[in-house]
Amino acid sequence: MLATPPLQPAADPRFGLDRHVHLATPLPLASGQSLAELDIAYETYGTLAPDRRNAILICHALTGDQHVGAATPRPGKPGWWERLVGPDKPIDPARHFIVCANVLGGCSGTTGPGSLDPATGKPYGMRFPVITIADMVSAQARLLDHLGIEQLHAVVGGSMGGMQALGWAAYHPERVRAVVAIATTARHSAQNIAFHEVGRQAIMADPRWQGGDYTADNGPADGLAVARMAAHVTYLSEQGLTERFGRRLQDRDALGFGFDAEFQIESYLRHQGLSFTQRFDANSYLYITRAMDYFDLAQPHDGLLAPAFVPAARAGVRFALVSFTTDWLYPTAESKRIVRALHAAGAATSFVELESPHGHDSFLLDAPEMNRIVAGFLAHNG
Amino acid sequence: MLATPPLQPAADPRFGLDRHVHLATPLPLASGQSLAELDIAYETYGTLAPDRRNAILICHALTGDQHVGAATPRPGKPGWWERLVGPDKPIDPARHFIVCANVLGGCSGTTGPGSLDPATGKPYGMRFPVITIADMVSAQARLLDHLGIEQLHAVVGGSMGGMQALGWAAYHPERVRAVVAIATTARHSAQNIAFHEVGRQAIMADPRWQGGDYTADNGPADGLAVARMAAHVTYLSEQGLTERFGRRLQDRDALGFGFDAEFQIESYLRHQGLSFTQRFDANSYLYITRAMDYFDLAQPHDGLLAPAFVPAARAGVRFALVSFTTDWLYPTAESKRIVRALHAAGAATSFVELESPHGHDSFLLDAPEMNRIVAGFLAHNG
Repeated sequence: MLATPPLQPAADPRFGLDRHVHLATPLPLASGQSLAELDIAYETYGTLAPDRRNAILICHALTGDQHVGAATPRPGKPGWWERLVGPDKPIDPARHFIVCANVLGGCSGTTGPGSLDPATGKPYGMRFPVITIADMVSAQARLLDHLGIEQLHAVVGGSMGGMQALGWAAYHPERVRAVVAIATTARHSAQNIAFHEVGRQAIMADPRWQGGDYTADNGPADGLAVARMAAHVTYLSEQGLTERFGRRLQDRDALGFGFDAEFQIESYLRHQGLSFTQRFDANSYLYITRAMDYFDLAQPHDGLLAPAFVPAARAGVRFALVSFTTDWLYPTAESKRIVRALHAAGAATSFVELESPHGHDSFLLDAPEMNRIVAGFLAHNG
Repeated sequence: MLATPPLQPAADPRFGLDRHVHLATPLPLASGQSLAELDIAYETYGTLAPDRRNAILICHALTGDQHVGAATPRPGKPGWWERLVGPDKPIDPARHFIVCANVLGGCSGTTGPGSLDPATGKPYGMRFPVITIADMVSAQARLLDHLGIEQLHAVVGGSMGGMQALGWAAYHPERVRAVVAIATTARHSAQNIAFHEVGRQAIMADPRWQGGDYTADNGPADGLAVARMAAHVTYLSEQGLTERFGRRLQDRDALGFGFDAEFQIESYLRHQGLSFTQRFDANSYLYITRAMDYFDLAQPHDGLLAPAFVPAARAGVRFALVSFTTDWLYPTAESKRIVRALHAAGAATSFVELESPHGHDSFLLDAPEMNRIVAGFLAHNG
């Protein structure tokens, strides 16, 4: 007797690449405001199992998007986490049903400050409500409702994606069985806030920002580029920068005694700033950095972190945390603080600090040990 | 028989507060260009000994000036290093003849991009030649010639001031007997250059910069403020920021869900940026950061640092280096690199890493151990 064929989600218009859903139900926000309606741009990879228990949500970082994997080749646009997500990778569409959505406040199709305000028919701009990591998680929960996924096999993210992953455990412990939080923190530190504030001030200082009411072809590109440059330095380590660039000169043999990009690091940074403005929206940058600065899982618990995880521990949620030795943006000390709180809450927790010279960005780079850890953790949880 | 009364330099118009000298001899620069004439704004404190061997040159940091001490009270304007320089301090006008000059390229009276170009009668702006730390030292040497000081008892500086102090040993070993270099480096790293480049791009992105040809009352204040904010974060430590600001809110009890300066660290940074624009010139900021980025004492010696110090070691110059545990701008590793090179060169060297939570700025703050070290080193050298 032949087995019943599995569900064929490829035929379901909700599943696949470049998906989009419009949800007309208002989304209440942490601020007390609400969004009248919500658009979410997302992708899915793989096949949802008949028992719907193989779904993994991937959460992207500040400037990421929903295009996480490479299930289908897209010329010129590889997925941003193909090293971890894809055929024969730890998160594998052959086994997992993978979901990745552009965050609330983003600029890749999900509702954000660049969206049209249904009340006025004009872009929100700075009239968009300030959002939080919890609001991003709320929007993702709406998406899972839409997709018919009650509980996630796992939620996985690095950096701001890790904040969302931890947020899933804190806000919806009954909807997630395992959390993988990489190179992240349970709160934004004063230094984290400071660097973000520099970026925001750079954007707002650009006259073309115009209080947020710029047009797509005349936005605050100069300010956004400076913001990106400042942030980018925090994603790399002093050691990594020295190894990669040192004091080497760009296209010259001797100092030019001018203000061109004479050092390779200058040329690299200018390129990072410029190319970023071609793919990201300045107002989204303001709102998402603000959401990150507001993030502090201990805040509702008088500064104690463990209580934030008690419901997740009771629900049996398992946690894997990974940090990198040279990550000074969200250093190992912050991961250890989370691990201590998880232990205090009684949650099953594994933690590894990995050697890497590449600073915060290590989680996006080739990291075989990270892959082994994620693969092992997800399999054990199977 | 009464002793001959000492020289009374107070009667000498070259000595005292708020001094200024115009030197008409061209100053050759490292770039191969030269400045037709040179103005230096400086101060002296104390009395030059009859044997002229008690002179100490203090070198200021990126945004410092010649007003180092407090020999005379100046309402509202304390000296920037009064903790180290002043009556009953390690550098004491009762014993030392103290000289501090605004650096070449600066904006407190010494020739810089805001000065009038004698060839045109208009401000140099970006037509000012690119300068180096070596050029700053050359200008200081001219000042010592003017003051009649052949050899310094010591040259003392922190941060960029430390670069100049090391530069004195490298470029004029016969004119200095002791070097105190605090919280500094012998080369700007890729990360150092990166943060400076962010600041320069912020200034140049400000439309009011106008290629450097702004007027005093309509300069690129917004860009300069962003540059200062970015730099300021690098002067403080994560630990110090957490202790001082943490996630505390400014003038409010709860998150406001907006883009005001809600966190104390935001308010503090905005204030730092704004107040800086009232005391510093944007073009000077460009030129001085460039000089720092160019600084690499090992560069003329195929990347080897020890040879830069061999002449100083042979001349008997003694060195004291101080670093601070939480200084990540010029970390202890850079001081140790200098110490290794000095040892290899055969120079008498002392080095201490001091505990401090305050990051790079520690050298400007209350540091009793630093004071003891400097006092002991200068006395021993007496």
